[in-house]
Amino acid sequence: MLKTRLLELRQGVLSKNDQIAERLRERFHSEGVLALNFVSAPGSGKTMLLERVLERLLRDGHRVAVLAGDLETDNDAQRLARTGALVHQIQTHGACHLEAEWVQQHIAEARWDLSDIEFLFIENVGNLVCPSSYDLGEDLRVVLISVTEGEDKPLKYPVLFNSADVAVITKIDLVEAVECDLELMKRNIRAVRPDMRIFETSAKRDIGIQPFVDFLIEERKQRFTFC
Amino acid sequence: MLKTRLLELRQGVLSKNDQIAERLRERFHSEGVLALNFVSAPGSGKTMLLERVLERLLRDGHRVAVLAGDLETDNDAQRLARTGALVHQIQTHGACHLEAEWVQQHIAEARWDLSDIEFLFIENVGNLVCPSSYDLGEDLRVVLISVTEGEDKPLKYPVLFNSADVAVITKIDLVEAVECDLELMKRNIRAVRPDMRIFETSAKRDIGIQPFVDFLIEERKQRFTFC
Repeated sequence: MLKTRLLELRQGVLSKNDQIAERLRERFHSEGVLALNFVSAPGSGKTMLLERVLERLLRDGHRVAVLAGDLETDNDAQRLARTGALVHQIQTHGACHLEAEWVQQHIAEARWDLSDIEFLFIENVGNLVCPSSYDLGEDLRVVLISVTEGEDKPLKYPVLFNSADVAVITKIDLVEAVECDLELMKRNIRAVRPDMRIFETSAKRDIGIQPFVDFLIEERKQRFTFC
Repeated sequence: MLKTRLLELRQGVLSKNDQIAERLRERFHSEGVLALNFVSAPGSGKTMLLERVLERLLRDGHRVAVLAGDLETDNDAQRLARTGALVHQIQTHGACHLEAEWVQQHIAEARWDLSDIEFLFIENVGNLVCPSSYDLGEDLRVVLISVTEGEDKPLKYPVLFNSADVAVITKIDLVEAVECDLELMKRNIRAVRPDMRIFETSAKRDIGIQPFVDFLIEERKQRFTFC
């Protein structure tokens, strides 16, 4: 009984989230902002990948902002701010995912002029389950998976991998050390999301970052030809 | 408005979970079962650590059972069953944590005679947030953290680390490859949970497994001196 009512309320909350996400997406599109939602397990390397990506985009004159979600600390926001990008922290105080409403609130709080932003990166809470249900108004959901996590993770967390548009395999410099079968990992990603575009990267060794950056620039171009 | 009602219902559901967990704990105690709830991020190595632990306990004549929680696959249950332990799978079909009610149901479904089990291992869903709120009737909550995840994870997920009784650092054979500062990781664990007992292990290289097994045997002895 309790559970049935809980589910009904959750659907209510979710559809409210979807409405806000849809409005956010329209706003991003009208301002020419490509919005990206980065999801992954804790420790898969979202922040370090973002550092490398931001550095390259900024170096080439692009205008970039980041909303960094974190349960309790502002470690990630501090690291990302050092690149020179606009960075704002969303502390979730225990919540296991970000919601569209918080994205909306924190964009207002940061007082960003969206027309002056080309790329908005939203770094979600490290969690392979809950963020899959929450649209944040993004154009692309990017799922990261580290070679240290095991080849089977896409099969074990199919909903998140299925809801993502792009996969980035991280820490590929460790493939041999952890005896990861990279081909098997890619097959497993495509078993739950056929034809998924997959990038192979090592932020620490600066491997595979540029193709991912080029992809983001191209995705934005295709959407906003007026720029 | 919706959110206030949702929270109230969640508390209702949680306290129902707590009641079932308390009854489970009483049952485990009356039967001499040491129950352990293994929590961690996805890919931190819960299953491989359990394989090594089960092998040693079974080799020494202990009676061991495992409830393996997984969103969609039975990969973990299959791997664990090869050790010869009693293994039963809990497929959560998307849920981000285990609940006491499911533990109760699946013990009944498995038709285990609890009086013939000394150690019950419950492998939770890989998630550093949601499982922290759900008591499963365990005696000890064991949190795993892999050296590949970064030293800051205890600070970023303090609730789970604070609710755990023991920490097991996994994959220590990779300390150098991933440039992990093990002392900093331990300091961060103890910053959120002072005096936490910490084990350092590599299941792949068979390092540090026996001290953890000895600890489990000793913990059971201290609780059930009648055996």
